[in-house]
Amino acid sequence: MTGRRKILISNDDGIHAKGLAALVEIAKEFGDVLVVAPHMPRSGMSMAITVDSPIRLNKFEKSAHFESYSCTGTPVDCVKIAFDKLLDKDPDLILSGINHGSNSSVSVHYSGTMGAIIEGCIHDVPSIGFSLLDYHPDADFSQVKEFARKIILETLKNGLPRGTCLNVNVPKGNPKGIAICRQGNGRWVEEFDQRTDPHNENYYWVTGYYQNMDNGSKDTDNHVLTEGFVSVVPVKIDITNHEQLEILKSWNLW
Amino acid sequence: MTGRRKILISNDDGIHAKGLAALVEIAKEFGDVLVVAPHMPRSGMSMAITVDSPIRLNKFEKSAHFESYSCTGTPVDCVKIAFDKLLDKDPDLILSGINHGSNSSVSVHYSGTMGAIIEGCIHDVPSIGFSLLDYHPDADFSQVKEFARKIILETLKNGLPRGTCLNVNVPKGNPKGIAICRQGNGRWVEEFDQRTDPHNENYYWVTGYYQNMDNGSKDTDNHVLTEGFVSVVPVKIDITNHEQLEILKSWNLW
Repeated sequence: MTGRRKILISNDDGIHAKGLAALVEIAKEFGDVLVVAPHMPRSGMSMAITVDSPIRLNKFEKSAHFESYSCTGTPVDCVKIAFDKLLDKDPDLILSGINHGSNSSVSVHYSGTMGAIIEGCIHDVPSIGFSLLDYHPDADFSQVKEFARKIILETLKNGLPRGTCLNVNVPKGNPKGIAICRQGNGRWVEEFDQRTDPHNENYYWVTGYYQNMDNGSKDTDNHVLTEGFVSVVPVKIDITNHEQLEILKSWNLW
Repeated sequence: MTGRRKILISNDDGIHAKGLAALVEIAKEFGDVLVVAPHMPRSGMSMAITVDSPIRLNKFEKSAHFESYSCTGTPVDCVKIAFDKLLDKDPDLILSGINHGSNSSVSVHYSGTMGAIIEGCIHDVPSIGFSLLDYHPDADFSQVKEFARKIILETLKNGLPRGTCLNVNVPKGNPKGIAICRQGNGRWVEEFDQRTDPHNENYYWVTGYYQNMDNGSKDTDNHVLTEGFVSVVPVKIDITNHEQLEILKSWNLW
């Protein structure tokens, strides 16, 4: 019993990712850190779990107030196995990232970074996902530090309501500040690049571009990111459309 | 141009699943059917997309008003590639399932069946996922037929608001009727079964049991299923906690 805070960290870019190391450095200021991260990049894994094969867990590093494990599973598997096999009590905070690329708008659904965070939220622990909108292989994650610190500090101070976590995206460059906003509305289009293999069979790579469908709304994550602000979206586990319940009750289903 | 409705179907139990065949039979009553389903079971895939390897698409069957393809990707990849490569206009309806097992409560987040449906909803097409709470390998999906028909008919008649789809779960046996409800609150616990391989290394299988955390609420999918009713939950793409926005704006982040 040290009385120090315990912070669980995962990501979807894998145990060797530069963004993970940057997040660990920030988290160490707030408590003891346990990392459980995929052994290789698992981007786009959403909340996938590994049901058709067993997973492995290997100790990666250990030093004062820090321990890390690599896991052959998905980001959600990483969080689940930390709770079941590595933590003797719930952590005080769960962080994920810093993701290499955006997880704003509808990308929250496909994101392994946010998958880990929604899983943390299901476990009733305050959980925050961080992503940086910089796709350069050697992206500079240090610009996230100041904003992540503020958001972590306020989350520890104020708490989050049960069933709500945070999706934080940081624009490239020097952010102007932090903006609270809703998930933007949009979708990915023209998503597959068709190629032909040496045996004359087709195969497809996922690609495409994001189509913003908010037409100028100023209260979305996409908008504030374009304006140079860090976006903070409160994300819910309960994805029921409660307003629709009464409407459905008027359908002829009985 | 036939004027007939076009219905896209996917699932996460794979192209050979009995539940898929049952859903195709129901859908054929409503229009021309295009199936794009994973070439093997992809349960627990959530909204995962395949970014680190290319995917394949192979024609599986073709008959009057029916065409099916197997795809090496996830359920979400199946829907995405159907829109990009197989459909010349948006379908009138997207269905997924019938899943072999429950996708109620928090399982909606891990479900590949519902992943395909949320993807359909992102494409602005009325989308409905069906799951049967029967884990027997030879489960009888015919009991779903009557209820699926009613729900499809009412969905086509009334439409669904943009950004909302339906998560339908059917109890085993003879359902008493249909109930409109919210997503139950709960989580999976004790999730990993530890084994030791012949080389004395540990590995883990995901397992565990569902813990209901609603304490007797009668308006949840879990409750109505226990009571023998088909549950219909309207599910939103926008997972922002809108009530939390104003609270976050009062934090000391500036």
